[in-house]
Amino acid sequence: MSDMIDFETDPSQYRHWRVEYDGDVAQLFMDVDENGGLFDGYDLKLNSYDLGVDIELADIVQRMRFEHPEIRVVVLKSGKDKVFCAGANIRMLAGAAHAHKVNFCKFTNETRNAIENAEFESGQKYVAAIKGACAGGGFELALACNHIMLVDDGASTVALPEVPLLAVLPGTGGLTRLTDKRQVRRDLCDVFCAMEEGVRGARALDWRLVDEIVSNSKFNDVVDERAAKFASELGKPSHVGIALTPLQKTIAEEGSVHYSTLTVEVDRIGGTATLMINGPDTAPPANIDDFVKAGSDSYMLRLARELDDAILHLRLNEREAGLLIFRSQGDPATLLEHEEQLHKNSGHWLANEVLLYWKRILKRVDVTSRSMAALVEHGSCFAGLLAELLFSVDRTYMMEGEFEGNNRHIASITLSSSNLGTMPMANGLSRLATRFLGEPETLTAVETSVGTPLDANAASNHGLVTFTYDDVDWEDEVRIFIEERASFSPDAMTGMEANLRFAGPETMETRIFGRLTAWQNWIFQRPNAAGEQGALQRYGTGVRGKYNMERV
Amino acid sequence: MSDMIDFETDPSQYRHWRVEYDGDVAQLFMDVDENGGLFDGYDLKLNSYDLGVDIELADIVQRMRFEHPEIRVVVLKSGKDKVFCAGANIRMLAGAAHAHKVNFCKFTNETRNAIENAEFESGQKYVAAIKGACAGGGFELALACNHIMLVDDGASTVALPEVPLLAVLPGTGGLTRLTDKRQVRRDLCDVFCAMEEGVRGARALDWRLVDEIVSNSKFNDVVDERAAKFASELGKPSHVGIALTPLQKTIAEEGSVHYSTLTVEVDRIGGTATLMINGPDTAPPANIDDFVKAGSDSYMLRLARELDDAILHLRLNEREAGLLIFRSQGDPATLLEHEEQLHKNSGHWLANEVLLYWKRILKRVDVTSRSMAALVEHGSCFAGLLAELLFSVDRTYMMEGEFEGNNRHIASITLSSSNLGTMPMANGLSRLATRFLGEPETLTAVETSVGTPLDANAASNHGLVTFTYDDVDWEDEVRIFIEERASFSPDAMTGMEANLRFAGPETMETRIFGRLTAWQNWIFQRPNAAGEQGALQRYGTGVRGKYNMERV
Repeated sequence: MSDMIDFETDPSQYRHWRVEYDGDVAQLFMDVDENGGLFDGYDLKLNSYDLGVDIELADIVQRMRFEHPEIRVVVLKSGKDKVFCAGANIRMLAGAAHAHKVNFCKFTNETRNAIENAEFESGQKYVAAIKGACAGGGFELALACNHIMLVDDGASTVALPEVPLLAVLPGTGGLTRLTDKRQVRRDLCDVFCAMEEGVRGARALDWRLVDEIVSNSKFNDVVDERAAKFASELGKPSHVGIALTPLQKTIAEEGSVHYSTLTVEVDRIGGTATLMINGPDTAPPANIDDFVKAGSDSYMLRLARELDDAILHLRLNEREAGLLIFRSQGDPATLLEHEEQLHKNSGHWLANEVLLYWKRILKRVDVTSRSMAALVEHGSCFAGLLAELLFSVDRTYMMEGEFEGNNRHIASITLSSSNLGTMPMANGLSRLATRFLGEPETLTAVETSVGTPLDANAASNHGLVTFTYDDVDWEDEVRIFIEERASFSPDAMTGMEANLRFAGPETMETRIFGRLTAWQNWIFQRPNAAGEQGALQRYGTGVRGKYNMERV
Repeated sequence: MSDMIDFETDPSQYRHWRVEYDGDVAQLFMDVDENGGLFDGYDLKLNSYDLGVDIELADIVQRMRFEHPEIRVVVLKSGKDKVFCAGANIRMLAGAAHAHKVNFCKFTNETRNAIENAEFESGQKYVAAIKGACAGGGFELALACNHIMLVDDGASTVALPEVPLLAVLPGTGGLTRLTDKRQVRRDLCDVFCAMEEGVRGARALDWRLVDEIVSNSKFNDVVDERAAKFASELGKPSHVGIALTPLQKTIAEEGSVHYSTLTVEVDRIGGTATLMINGPDTAPPANIDDFVKAGSDSYMLRLARELDDAILHLRLNEREAGLLIFRSQGDPATLLEHEEQLHKNSGHWLANEVLLYWKRILKRVDVTSRSMAALVEHGSCFAGLLAELLFSVDRTYMMEGEFEGNNRHIASITLSSSNLGTMPMANGLSRLATRFLGEPETLTAVETSVGTPLDANAASNHGLVTFTYDDVDWEDEVRIFIEERASFSPDAMTGMEANLRFAGPETMETRIFGRLTAWQNWIFQRPNAAGEQGALQRYGTGVRGKYNMERV
């Protein structure tokens, strides 16, 4: 367990970031501790980062929403003198396992998306204020901010030098944000991404790489002015945040993790992890004020945080758990009361933030590269937001009819407004709309069932589950599925699932996770990058990578 | 040169297909010659195919448009008794180089797209009439047809068994056509793609995998009925086709290829191929009747066929030519006259087919995984359709001002309606609209320049070229670019270009080439598929693939 990566952190533990809160503007300083790498074998020089640095950033972005809802503008700056950020640490990348690299990129992508969406979702705008070299993942971080300011000092540059320098892609959204977000002309993208030295000053502005250039002498003042202006445009809410208190979790040697609302059991031999979600025991807080008082102890937020932590834990720390199985137990009606409180108060900042957080978590589930299934058993509580998990996973099995010796309530699924559009996938559609792209009439029928518990027969007729089995067949069928799934090539599963999960429209998000990531994964495997003579391995040795020049 | 793959064929050379033309319906029989593989080491059993089989199919599809415009419906059948098509030959895949596999898949994808689009573009509908097992690439071929009929005989199945059997994806559009074209529910896709045995009869229809099931006794009759019905719905044009006569080409040992309108020079040391296009010497045929009489000798069709052949030749036979450089010489005004004849007569079937063919070729250029550049030199004729190449390539360099000792006409670019929407990219937008996504005002300005020759200064102001250089700098700058490009990792280039070339909307086509292909490329590299103990290598040995179960 010594290698276990913990995704939970808090400000008292930060080694790489510093935040100064002042009214409605926060100054976020990246100031990476060279000696604070997650693993041995590399120094985090020049504000380069590894997963540990990004875990802190994700925590900051998350706390900004919940603990500091008063903040309107976050100004991202470097805490170092001559460099903004050199990007992901190359030695770390060269030394890391393929699976670590891929999951590291995925997590950083998710954090970049949270930064980007904070403005439209929560009225928190991130501004990048770039002084010094801003390269690779550093510029990708800036690209996730919705306003980029570059000092025009004749030296500071923005750059995506991955291709010429390392023979890999700017894989944390860089290429996609250039073409889709900033809509840079493609031949200029080509030139920009093929140059090691980057672009500075007026050219960076001309090429749409930054939004603003400011002379060195005026830079700090103009950044402050801009922050104040954006903050005033975004309005000044008078919310007081809640504290995100430490998670209640215990991790056992053999891989099981116990949270307050969730238990994760890992079967390392069988290659599965089962996530058992426990529904709420008690009714929701009496009103929204009590809900705020409950803070991060309220059920829906607690479950969200625990589920989020569990998914990340499984991704990085249990890489051979190729199949995630979602189960639940509890009273669906009570669960729906908790959820209803959020929807009824969706105009309230905290209820809204909890819903937005669920949206992010469900998207995180969608892009998790594990096979996923749900078992809707007697006694379960797949209703509303939890039912949404059924449409996020690859397959759902549901118990049908009485089971001998099982006196829990008959398995049912109850839909709520959470299933009809308030929790869109990365493609912008609800999971049900995506599921029924070819059957609009089924979608219409399903919509009329909101609030009604659907048993196996009804759920199957509505197309909500893949298979239903009675007492005679359930155990065998589920076992056969699990064993069969565990026998398949995990790579083929990853590719298949990535292609099947996102029918319908594409967005920048789906392109980052689908297209850019797929190409980066491919390149991460190629000898020209990762081989002994590849550019990643040779970086810093003074010897260039040696390439097989054959095109594929 | 013994391994050179020739993409040119004609009916007299077919070994794997048979076509029966009868009025407005053609019967297309797949009847693969086991011993007719392109390479040694495998037999094409059970109607399995390799690139050679697909080259013939592409030729049939192409000749259907030009030589048989009277055909409205093409019924795709098996010439074998118990099998429709077993898909791509596994031994061939297991033995082929990565680059061959990838380019094989790309070419088959392009042919599938041509089949699919034939209905909407040319009123030629392909119907798959499936008897016997139809698996993998065989079902992907059926999926490209716009109507799928399956015999309901208790035995015939459709299947995509790649994932469980071979640990690779159905990579010729299969996954994407399931989700996007046929809009099969994603959990059913998951089940379908994870089963070796496939689906038959009513379930295949329920799951939207086929359009129609018909009992064995009625199958042939119903297929004929359906073909007649579709043919009558599509109308009965009375066109008589033209003959696609053999290409005029000579290939030299050192890699150069001379066509009548085009010369390809390969620099195997430098890693480049230069395509010099020669503009037309004479005015276009006097009228559309003369144009038809000229047949495949008319300049625009000749150039199209030669350019198409050259691109395919370079892709498969010159894999180390990582940079394709497009040049041209000739009179732009004469070229535009030829093109204008097509546009003026776009209601005429042959003019229309030539334009549609250009659309396909330009898309073929777009997805060619080589770096591409164009040099707009003095004496060149980048106008209209040829100017479109400038917006397909990654960068364009243009000569500016007088060059000493060069008395050819000053370099210019002239736009035509071909550049404004009649030649859409796979994303559905024109190349200029894609180029100027972020600058709609530039697009508007550019549109007003149609018909006006633009010199380097004007072209640069309009954002049509990447760099312009005068006599002093031209040679050095172009040389430096070419040398630099040749020094980069070809894999990183492939990934970068695939991400930069397709800003804007996504379509099924872009998803097939961008997302599905990228994941398949990745998987083709993974030891679980391609390694010694991988499923591809072990297929047919009776021993299952041995997998590293770690997820990435």
